[in-house]
Amino acid sequence: MQWVLIHSGGLDSTVLLYELRRAGHALHALSVDYGQRHRKELEAAAAICDEAGVDHRTVDLRAVRPLLAGSALTGDQPVPEGRYNDISMRQTVVPNRNMILLSLAVAWAVNLKADGVAYAAHAGDHALYPDCRPAFIEAMRQAVRLCDRHAIELLTPFSDLRKADIVQLGASLGAPLARTWSCYKGEALHCGRCGTCVERREAFAQAGVPDPTVYKET
Amino acid sequence: MQWVLIHSGGLDSTVLLYELRRAGHALHALSVDYGQRHRKELEAAAAICDEAGVDHRTVDLRAVRPLLAGSALTGDQPVPEGRYNDISMRQTVVPNRNMILLSLAVAWAVNLKADGVAYAAHAGDHALYPDCRPAFIEAMRQAVRLCDRHAIELLTPFSDLRKADIVQLGASLGAPLARTWSCYKGEALHCGRCGTCVERREAFAQAGVPDPTVYKET
Repeated sequence: MQWVLIHSGGLDSTVLLYELRRAGHALHALSVDYGQRHRKELEAAAAICDEAGVDHRTVDLRAVRPLLAGSALTGDQPVPEGRYNDISMRQTVVPNRNMILLSLAVAWAVNLKADGVAYAAHAGDHALYPDCRPAFIEAMRQAVRLCDRHAIELLTPFSDLRKADIVQLGASLGAPLARTWSCYKGEALHCGRCGTCVERREAFAQAGVPDPTVYKET
Repeated sequence: MQWVLIHSGGLDSTVLLYELRRAGHALHALSVDYGQRHRKELEAAAAICDEAGVDHRTVDLRAVRPLLAGSALTGDQPVPEGRYNDISMRQTVVPNRNMILLSLAVAWAVNLKADGVAYAAHAGDHALYPDCRPAFIEAMRQAVRLCDRHAIELLTPFSDLRKADIVQLGASLGAPLARTWSCYKGEALHCGRCGTCVERREAFAQAGVPDPTVYKET
């Protein structure tokens, strides 16, 4: 089958890329530049797809940034440090990001006459990000199915996994986990302090997989 | 209440703007440049909002055009002429356009802490455009409600109206129907031959409202 994969350049979507490739699917990876502070993830996405031999496209959506300006990822306020499920991490919610990403990926899937869109939402995202909740995903699945005359499917095989499960799967698939980017600060190294760095570290530790990431602060 | 209005510069969304303004709502109008051939509608949208004193923003989404290239509105193939419900008019379907427009309008609504998004989908659109079908709209209504911690509403007051009803309502509200743009060809004058020109003409005739549009071919 043929899928458009929403690929951030992070851990989850990279493991999904390797999982779908292993299963023999044809893939087209889509990354979106929405003016995120951690633009390094876009370079990671391009490098990972290049290495994997997967068709990859980055869409420049920076013109939309004024609509998204409430978030620490797209505005001028600093990225909060601390636990990834702290209330302060709500500052990193980008308004309606997932619907925007899905809408673009689905448009490409319609155009390619692909079977649908693959998306690495996982169980750990739900607490903080309202547009990762299962009820939201299910409503989108229904809308995606109806947006074209041919039903477009939404593939979310990680929806019941924890991030540690994804790290384990990635290690077993030989996915280039060291090349993936998580840190919201987007500096030269992973900061080790922001919510997504803390989550990344914990996932490797819980998975029992050596963490190849170089963190600025240990 | 406060709404983000998806405003194409066409008849339907202009009448909805005047209807919501009459009802005392605060409005923010959003137009999207997705590389449509009939860019004249964007100029119409800006002029109409300026005259109405409504906050208006046009988002430049032209970078997304490669994803949408299957349509006569965004590609190089000519706009078909004929009845608006002809099968040939399917060439004017832009892949997943409505989900893309809604996702951006909803992001802005979340940012503004507005009550929701107003959208002028009407009954006449359903036959041709899969993403105007009531089942699609209802699925999106559910997804929009769940995309943020605060429920965002989708306001679709025209969903049971014919285009002729909208023309009648617009005339009774004193909406500037002559300034609205429909023609998919986007030349100096409305062509009078493409599906959307034929539909526009018929709506005025059925409504018994004098048509102020200057058509190239009568």
